[in-house]
Amino acid sequence: MSNDRLIYLPLGGAGEIGMNCYVYGYGPRDRERLIVVDLGVAFPDMDTSPGVDLIFPDIQWLADRRDRIEAIFITHAHEDHVGALGHLWDRLRAPVYARQFTAMNAVRKMEEQGADPANVHVVGKWPETVTAGPFTVGFLPVSHSIPESSALVIDTPEGRVIHTGDFKIDHMPGVGEPFDRELFAQVSKDGVRALVCDSTNVFSPHEGRSESTVGPEIARLVAEQPGMVVATTFASNVARVRTLAQAGIASGRSVCLLGRAMRRMIETSVQAGVLSDFPSTISPEDAREVPRESLMLIVTGSQGERRAASAQLARGKYLGLTMAEGDTFLFSSKTIPGNERGVIRVMNQFSEMGVDVVDDDNGRYHVSGHANRPDLLAMHELTRPQMVVPMHGEHRHLREHVKLATANGRDGVLAPNGTCISLSGNKPEVVEYVETGRTYLDGSVRIGAMDGVVRDRIRMALNGHVVVTLIMDEDDTPLGDPWVELMGLPEKGVSGASLTEVMEADLGQFLQRADDKTLLDDDKLDTGLRRVARQVAVTEIGRKPEVTVVVSRLS
Amino acid sequence: MSNDRLIYLPLGGAGEIGMNCYVYGYGPRDRERLIVVDLGVAFPDMDTSPGVDLIFPDIQWLADRRDRIEAIFITHAHEDHVGALGHLWDRLRAPVYARQFTAMNAVRKMEEQGADPANVHVVGKWPETVTAGPFTVGFLPVSHSIPESSALVIDTPEGRVIHTGDFKIDHMPGVGEPFDRELFAQVSKDGVRALVCDSTNVFSPHEGRSESTVGPEIARLVAEQPGMVVATTFASNVARVRTLAQAGIASGRSVCLLGRAMRRMIETSVQAGVLSDFPSTISPEDAREVPRESLMLIVTGSQGERRAASAQLARGKYLGLTMAEGDTFLFSSKTIPGNERGVIRVMNQFSEMGVDVVDDDNGRYHVSGHANRPDLLAMHELTRPQMVVPMHGEHRHLREHVKLATANGRDGVLAPNGTCISLSGNKPEVVEYVETGRTYLDGSVRIGAMDGVVRDRIRMALNGHVVVTLIMDEDDTPLGDPWVELMGLPEKGVSGASLTEVMEADLGQFLQRADDKTLLDDDKLDTGLRRVARQVAVTEIGRKPEVTVVVSRLS
Repeated sequence: MSNDRLIYLPLGGAGEIGMNCYVYGYGPRDRERLIVVDLGVAFPDMDTSPGVDLIFPDIQWLADRRDRIEAIFITHAHEDHVGALGHLWDRLRAPVYARQFTAMNAVRKMEEQGADPANVHVVGKWPETVTAGPFTVGFLPVSHSIPESSALVIDTPEGRVIHTGDFKIDHMPGVGEPFDRELFAQVSKDGVRALVCDSTNVFSPHEGRSESTVGPEIARLVAEQPGMVVATTFASNVARVRTLAQAGIASGRSVCLLGRAMRRMIETSVQAGVLSDFPSTISPEDAREVPRESLMLIVTGSQGERRAASAQLARGKYLGLTMAEGDTFLFSSKTIPGNERGVIRVMNQFSEMGVDVVDDDNGRYHVSGHANRPDLLAMHELTRPQMVVPMHGEHRHLREHVKLATANGRDGVLAPNGTCISLSGNKPEVVEYVETGRTYLDGSVRIGAMDGVVRDRIRMALNGHVVVTLIMDEDDTPLGDPWVELMGLPEKGVSGASLTEVMEADLGQFLQRADDKTLLDDDKLDTGLRRVARQVAVTEIGRKPEVTVVVSRLS
Repeated sequence: MSNDRLIYLPLGGAGEIGMNCYVYGYGPRDRERLIVVDLGVAFPDMDTSPGVDLIFPDIQWLADRRDRIEAIFITHAHEDHVGALGHLWDRLRAPVYARQFTAMNAVRKMEEQGADPANVHVVGKWPETVTAGPFTVGFLPVSHSIPESSALVIDTPEGRVIHTGDFKIDHMPGVGEPFDRELFAQVSKDGVRALVCDSTNVFSPHEGRSESTVGPEIARLVAEQPGMVVATTFASNVARVRTLAQAGIASGRSVCLLGRAMRRMIETSVQAGVLSDFPSTISPEDAREVPRESLMLIVTGSQGERRAASAQLARGKYLGLTMAEGDTFLFSSKTIPGNERGVIRVMNQFSEMGVDVVDDDNGRYHVSGHANRPDLLAMHELTRPQMVVPMHGEHRHLREHVKLATANGRDGVLAPNGTCISLSGNKPEVVEYVETGRTYLDGSVRIGAMDGVVRDRIRMALNGHVVVTLIMDEDDTPLGDPWVELMGLPEKGVSGASLTEVMEADLGQFLQRADDKTLLDDDKLDTGLRRVARQVAVTEIGRKPEVTVVVSRLS
């Protein structure tokens, strides 16, 4: 019997929605040849990652085994699947494979970070395949909310694995290939060892609806509006952007695309040949001359992002265009959990302008790009895998998806990030736990989520920051009183006196009473001054600030 | 004709959900006698108010007119209506009126902040009334998600005003009075000048459901669970807590209440006589001895609050009680927008323990306490007011509620916080805009939202903080090199060198080149050092930190 084994290891995306990165390996233990599927980002928030620009999966495990990586496959061009490629490629240095439109986006990601785009290779759809070490991989078209999304058919010496990527079952997706049940049944007919499957919508109980259902509703809404209509959706949802544009044209409006991502995605789609009948649009300059009742803007910023076109319009103007009483703003999108505050802020700003805001209205103007619970079950039944490995989801999604699979008589395995699974036996088996985590892109620097940098920022935000400065003379006595600078703290405490002055007075007293052992020892001084500063803060303002003590010794 | 006028002025709650505070006045212009309705809080978040403990409306306008305030009325005991009473009463010093249960909560709020609880007076329900200057005020029972909620019937020389407070139309609320259509019709039959009306659920299109509908669903769910059941809801939703407890008892479980607020609310309800048939409960100590399949816990923390019982159970244990595989956790509650991240965190922590999490499942296990759109219209029709003044809502809610009123042939007026409205004429008229805002309780100190304190905290969280220390000798030359301390910033930049060292070197060079004019001028030194520190940061780490410069001059 062979010592070789087939392993699966999620490094990101199995334990959160976002920053997808999955590894497959085949070979003798600890000498498996590896392929990587997707290199995505997640987005920071003020609660857990203030100041951070992007979040990557920690790929140290892969980087340590760089010589064993045969290839990187990108399933589709969403940021949570391709966004980290340019940033992380240099640590992996393997050839990158994707279909045309996805590859064009991957090339841009490489170029933006100074990585050589020649490492990105275009692959046609199934039955075309790429051989990468012991793996042969093909791109099987699926419907999703961006063109050219693909499941991967991964043939291994142990049999076939289907990695769904993000998908929904949509027979009329508008742009991009319809979901092809026949094709999935056909590639599965000789047996599927494992279905590694999207779990995002496992809690959505009803069969998913087609992208084609929102078109008529949007057309009706746009036609009924008396003023200017502004609509937002994800720029990458090219089918939706086209639907919106068509609704604008059908109602006799000129259509203008606003926001760099919006224009770029449409251009790339046309260049890649996945979009051929997009209505003609006008420039922002020309839009300014069009009567508002004859104008429709399609803008970035469906999640209330502060710098996007929607938020700028909500604050006043964008490229000279403004919204006014009687206009309508449509969110043809869902608010991703965690983004509610930003979206609501934008809605209220529009309300203050007298703009009518229409949201997705329980699915009338938006449908999800992910397979709902019955659709997941349909996928299980189409492919009839020996085992189901849920991915793309928080822990609760993965767990629920395992329950769904086992309730229907299949082996399911719960494999959050870092769980290395052997797919070789009759049942999936956990063979190892690998350390995983998050890497932050912070300005131009990468830092570990556990490095303490972001923890200190959160502490300063919650507690404020006191800086105590002290000069010690050549003879190790304090030269004058210590100085206090406050940041993020109230000027006055409950006594009514200046917090700085009370703190400086108490610190001065502490120094007067301090013995030589304290005065000679920087650590003791630091501890003592910090304690006094905190005591004053607790008494005066009822909180314990962060304290930085700077002792300068003249010598 | 009289020079007297009837005015309405919202200071909080009309422009946000929370921190409710409304003023009515009657008399000659700028000499109106005033009453205040509700003194509530709002809750901070990391995005806009990190480190803040509570948010109050800015009541400076009221405090400046303290001698004109006749009384303060509290409609019900939710935190966003009574939570600021103890904190702000000292600045207003008027008698406080509320019904029994609400008054007991108001007394506690006063006591907690050292205000004299003898200022709180209990009033019976309508037809009992209180006369306060030119106003006569009665408490008209309404159904809501806390016992004894009341609308106010405010009789003025200009006629009757109905201030709904929070309400829903529920004929079987379980605990507390059912909504009494007859009574509302009766108090309105001689004409209502203005209906000042809750707007929270104006975007909910369907008629609201009764609290009584969730009981059977919860009972079925709890009975079906094989392990321990833990349920959370707002502690103040006494009817729901009772429903949950009854479901526990009905399924043969012992019931234990966890969380201080949960136990206190039930005790107060029993004492106030609004709750008479609450099932007997056991202590946490006894609960530890009960087999888990025979136990139900009802806990605080429906919003994922980090210190609440639910979050503590999710992290491990609470009072010796733990959750385990096969147990069930029920959110019999809705997640308030903005709290999603915290709730999802708790859900995933439970998932990791193997606990099944059940959420409100589109209303199966939870109903709202607020009137939906058709119910608002029903209230308009019951009271047939001359004008509708929407309150309790963000700007978009108020605006939509005005549209609803006008579409149905009534005068509606959009009056966000600070909009002083005259209700005296045939139509509502804006007579003045008053400066309003937010006051933060920050530790033990109150600070204005615009004081810059919180802005600095947000900046430190987003940008990190650099402290530059420099000692200048008696002859105004730098004594040694400047020192740099970093907080919330990476240790190394793109050059691979220590950020502190690169910064100190560049700052040292700057000082060597600085002319006397710079060295003698603290402002110039500060500006120069700050600029150099930021330049280094931009080059090395790609971000502009906050910089504090401390120059000490020996003299």
